[in-house]
Amino acid sequence: MATYIEPKILKGFRDFLPSAEIARRALIENIEDTFRSFGFVPIDTPALEYAEILLGKGGGETEKQIYRFKDNGERDVALRFDLTVPFARFVALHRAELAFPFKRYHIGKVWRGENTQRGRYREFTQCDFDIIGSDSAASDFEIIFLIRSAMLGLGLDVTIHVNHRGLFNRFLSFIGQSEKSADILRAVDKLSKVGADETRKTLTEIAGEKNAEKILGFIGAKGGFTETLNRITELSGGPCEESKRLMALYQFMRETCALNEAENAEPFVLDPSITRGLDYYTGVVFETFLNELPDIGSICSGGRYDNLAGLYSKDKDSISGVGSSIGLDRLLSALESLNKLPTANNCRVAIACVDIEKSGQYQALAGKLRQAGLPCEVFTEQIDLVKQYIFAEKKGLHYVIIPGENPLDGTVTLRDLAGRHNVEVSIEEAVLKILS
Amino acid sequence: MATYIEPKILKGFRDFLPSAEIARRALIENIEDTFRSFGFVPIDTPALEYAEILLGKGGGETEKQIYRFKDNGERDVALRFDLTVPFARFVALHRAELAFPFKRYHIGKVWRGENTQRGRYREFTQCDFDIIGSDSAASDFEIIFLIRSAMLGLGLDVTIHVNHRGLFNRFLSFIGQSEKSADILRAVDKLSKVGADETRKTLTEIAGEKNAEKILGFIGAKGGFTETLNRITELSGGPCEESKRLMALYQFMRETCALNEAENAEPFVLDPSITRGLDYYTGVVFETFLNELPDIGSICSGGRYDNLAGLYSKDKDSISGVGSSIGLDRLLSALESLNKLPTANNCRVAIACVDIEKSGQYQALAGKLRQAGLPCEVFTEQIDLVKQYIFAEKKGLHYVIIPGENPLDGTVTLRDLAGRHNVEVSIEEAVLKILS
Repeated sequence: MATYIEPKILKGFRDFLPSAEIARRALIENIEDTFRSFGFVPIDTPALEYAEILLGKGGGETEKQIYRFKDNGERDVALRFDLTVPFARFVALHRAELAFPFKRYHIGKVWRGENTQRGRYREFTQCDFDIIGSDSAASDFEIIFLIRSAMLGLGLDVTIHVNHRGLFNRFLSFIGQSEKSADILRAVDKLSKVGADETRKTLTEIAGEKNAEKILGFIGAKGGFTETLNRITELSGGPCEESKRLMALYQFMRETCALNEAENAEPFVLDPSITRGLDYYTGVVFETFLNELPDIGSICSGGRYDNLAGLYSKDKDSISGVGSSIGLDRLLSALESLNKLPTANNCRVAIACVDIEKSGQYQALAGKLRQAGLPCEVFTEQIDLVKQYIFAEKKGLHYVIIPGENPLDGTVTLRDLAGRHNVEVSIEEAVLKILS
Repeated sequence: MATYIEPKILKGFRDFLPSAEIARRALIENIEDTFRSFGFVPIDTPALEYAEILLGKGGGETEKQIYRFKDNGERDVALRFDLTVPFARFVALHRAELAFPFKRYHIGKVWRGENTQRGRYREFTQCDFDIIGSDSAASDFEIIFLIRSAMLGLGLDVTIHVNHRGLFNRFLSFIGQSEKSADILRAVDKLSKVGADETRKTLTEIAGEKNAEKILGFIGAKGGFTETLNRITELSGGPCEESKRLMALYQFMRETCALNEAENAEPFVLDPSITRGLDYYTGVVFETFLNELPDIGSICSGGRYDNLAGLYSKDKDSISGVGSSIGLDRLLSALESLNKLPTANNCRVAIACVDIEKSGQYQALAGKLRQAGLPCEVFTEQIDLVKQYIFAEKKGLHYVIIPGENPLDGTVTLRDLAGRHNVEVSIEEAVLKILS
């Protein structure tokens, strides 16, 4: 039997100390409130699945990064590396039990054996939300509007960059470059990272100088939403389903946000350079940038896809959908640097332990505060009062209540920790003062 | 590349469909509110740790049940099988960053390769809460009082059975049976399962007939708290630290609950048959039973322990504590059968899609309801109105709003789904009606 084991954790994994975990949970709760206010419902799936299911679409990066092993029953299992594949499996398995269109969200941990030198974690939380079983522009719009509402709920103004993958494909077809679309998409996706010159060079290698210029003209189209839309529609050979879809979205955006008196004139931008690289999107795609911190990159991206559960389904009716994913880690550090971390109803007051024999009465006193909606800690060690003040400050509390001889009758002493002064008040006055 | 993969999940693992996941999250939120109101703070630790750390104390059942494997870097890793061992490792690692007494809770998934035939799951959620770095009776009491408060917060009356493992050990020593304490504890722990006759037989085999009777006399002591306490104190050789601790707890219980006007005369019972078997407890131990469903067994158990982080710490100062764990699965099914599942602020109304071109205005209308604190779904498929009613009912909604020609001006039609009737109302009237 061991007598000492070094307390270490795996590289790429994290402990969450209370201050970090409180912030993380408050952020998740805040976002969940918005999901719920839109009628989205939560689901959950197992952390561990058959490897065959998770690796379904086959290999590459995923296969190298996945935590895969044989369980005690010699089953080939793996930890989920995203929430999309389990969702596809979930929908195929429970199709008959779900009502479509199905609007769900899923917040859960995923695991990837990433190279931690790139600042990535091997365990992190994903937050996905989707509408499946609906092809309408109204559903596309709802996801985009939900993103904006969730961010406004966190006190964040955002600009959502929208595009249509199908229109880009139509453009490539119009200039005779359909076959090279995978390479072109990959090059375009790197534009913001490598710059225009490098992208021009790569595109020229792929499609020739003339087509490279055309592609750069398409993805570089700028201006108001309709202006840009007209330009890229023209470049793609004229009006089509895809351009109509973008026009419908613009109409919805204008109506909803004008009516909600948007504080930002242009929360939505048509940005033909957004393609979401090699992702499985087929329709509308979007990325979300914080107006105060645009350089940290998109904090919420997504788009429309076809045939979500196809791989796990014998049913010929495919289920298309539109969805998005919030980058919680990135968002959390943005909120922190903007000093906008949401606060839960955290504890701000403790009852000092003056006479430990009276701990029952102290809990009863705390019960009164809790009933008034005020979280209240009770100190359970009788130490010097000044040490209790120091301890309370270390814990981030604002007040300490020093109970009197009869804790529940008469007055208490309320210690303002920042102001370093005491006042004699009734319990009711103490509650009001702490709440204020 | 695969073209069809059967969508199945691993035995002992579960998908949570929306209705189940909503209930689970509402339960957790409700309990967290109570934790927070007591000033307890959350932490989190990785799902995956070095196997050496998790298996630290060595083997037996744990070793057989743990999900253990080599990761891509050939590290010997395992999924956590409880939250206690990671907490001990956490405290040893972060000791300098924590303020003691440290009151934390931790809600998270754990994994065990249990035999699923016994109705056990291989993935389930644990909910632990502890005060560490405090030896006081006031801390013991706070944990017990917190259990009761959390259950009252769920609308559940409980009886908490309390005992002191140390007093039982003192009694065994007094009758000269210390050496056999492990066997005796194991036999006593099975009392409620196998009955008094079987226990008498086992105890007689272990300690002889005379001692078996003495042990049964001790664990069978009944009556009011002080009456029972006097009896078992006498059987253990007279007043001692342990009996004083129980007396202090009784005093706190009486004061707190009388002052809070307990609806149940005896929420706390001194029950000398509670020993928590071979667990690592050294002091006060307790189990919690629902007054309406006592037969399902304890839904929250725990006790006081010594030297939590000893195995992972070179520091000679040991950290003792008192803690407990709520059986969420058991509690959830109890709440379900009592029809007391907590409800979050779920969505009860949808805006029908009469003209999909107006989806932007429908979202704006929904925004008004959401701002009034009312979750509101917007239907994003234009289908027959009757089909939208059926869909809304299937989703468990109570109302459908049918917007007019100008969705944001004038009146809307409010459909009461259960009553199957419509009324013309203003938006404000609709909000009031849905909230009522």
